[in-house]
Amino acid sequence: MRVKARVAYDGTGYSGFQWQSNAPTIQAELERALQHLIGTFTRIVAAGRTDAGVHAEGQIIAFDTEWRHPLPALMRGMNALLPTQIAVLEMTQAPDSFHPRFDARRRWYRYTIYHAPVRHPLAARVSLHVHRALDVPAMQQAASVLVGQHDFKSFGSPPQGENSVREVFRAEWTEGATWGAGRWLYFDIEANAFLRRMVRMIVGTLLRVGYGGLSPESVRDILEARDRQLAGPAVSPHGLSLRAVAYES
Amino acid sequence: MRVKARVAYDGTGYSGFQWQSNAPTIQAELERALQHLIGTFTRIVAAGRTDAGVHAEGQIIAFDTEWRHPLPALMRGMNALLPTQIAVLEMTQAPDSFHPRFDARRRWYRYTIYHAPVRHPLAARVSLHVHRALDVPAMQQAASVLVGQHDFKSFGSPPQGENSVREVFRAEWTEGATWGAGRWLYFDIEANAFLRRMVRMIVGTLLRVGYGGLSPESVRDILEARDRQLAGPAVSPHGLSLRAVAYES
Repeated sequence: MRVKARVAYDGTGYSGFQWQSNAPTIQAELERALQHLIGTFTRIVAAGRTDAGVHAEGQIIAFDTEWRHPLPALMRGMNALLPTQIAVLEMTQAPDSFHPRFDARRRWYRYTIYHAPVRHPLAARVSLHVHRALDVPAMQQAASVLVGQHDFKSFGSPPQGENSVREVFRAEWTEGATWGAGRWLYFDIEANAFLRRMVRMIVGTLLRVGYGGLSPESVRDILEARDRQLAGPAVSPHGLSLRAVAYES
Repeated sequence: MRVKARVAYDGTGYSGFQWQSNAPTIQAELERALQHLIGTFTRIVAAGRTDAGVHAEGQIIAFDTEWRHPLPALMRGMNALLPTQIAVLEMTQAPDSFHPRFDARRRWYRYTIYHAPVRHPLAARVSLHVHRALDVPAMQQAASVLVGQHDFKSFGSPPQGENSVREVFRAEWTEGATWGAGRWLYFDIEANAFLRRMVRMIVGTLLRVGYGGLSPESVRDILEARDRQLAGPAVSPHGLSLRAVAYES
């Protein structure tokens, strides 16, 4: 049977989701736990290959298995074997045709900023610290330029053989609660799919708008130029989290 | 001059606040940064010697220095040199007689629980995961038994030569926001001072009440018995944070 699971992880110590021969990855940890429980090697496939240091609260994976016991027992077993940085939050049987990457219709990423005069150690793993003043309305104006179907070549690279046209459904800044001497600031972006480093390049560009070095209008010029020299710089991965992946029901 | 500073840290990788010859400590990191900036060894004193793995958002330290430049420059310098796990949030000049431990009137600790069916990797460093049902009103009833001046011998050990009488001003459970498939649960406790492991022993005891294994009334019996065999077990340190220390103004 094919199993679908929702997975969360703290990506800090990992070289991304995808298996690598010489570096710790989320995929390797999940496959190791499955091998231990099932007894045979089980290849898993994920909705998104998150980069090194990127977190997830709603990564979707799938795998085929001969497992004959109830699925909750498999999920509990995995959570007992996995390191504290990784957990399986949900597990269900899926149709045999289900593919977590090809069938995904929407992906939601959140980038978290800790906006405060001084950095905070307990915010460091999951956010980017920004101490400069930010013009959030200007950042929101610039973000809305990105909504719709566009060629996002300026903001990242597509996998080999693919073009760089993507559809962004939502690109939104939200000011969160105060925390210590600062406050949380979230950038939520949903799209059918993303280019490599696209969210981090977008956030880096929007922060330049927030600092006043770039007008909201010029983000449209950058988008239309389809030139990777103009956007960014990419912000660091530890503020980024894959929140959810949506499929046709 | 004597300098007073407020310090925050993620205690995960450290063997507590207090200097040890063969283990990484918060004190050693702070003294190393000061030595680098000032050029001479500078001994620091803290309000509370937090245990291994315990965090802080409001630890207070003090030190004497001949530093002749503005204090914000010293604070910025320290934050540039300190690892991401430690930061100085505030720095002011204090009277020469100021002592962060002896002058402290109230200490506020918070213990954080992540109450959810499945553990969450992004909650793991700063909370204890509890999946069992909890009777929070019963836990609150038991907590209020602790308020007032009592001999807390059942809940921890005093430093050598001290008695175990302490005054608790507040002991309060609060249900926080939902988070993933669960929600946050906080235990805030304020006292004039604490015994070693006292907060973690109290939380361990109150969780037994929450699970239904102990009645709220029997917490009074445990308190009055002054017998360390009856309380606890101590919960793990990573849910604990020193939030603030108050002085006479």
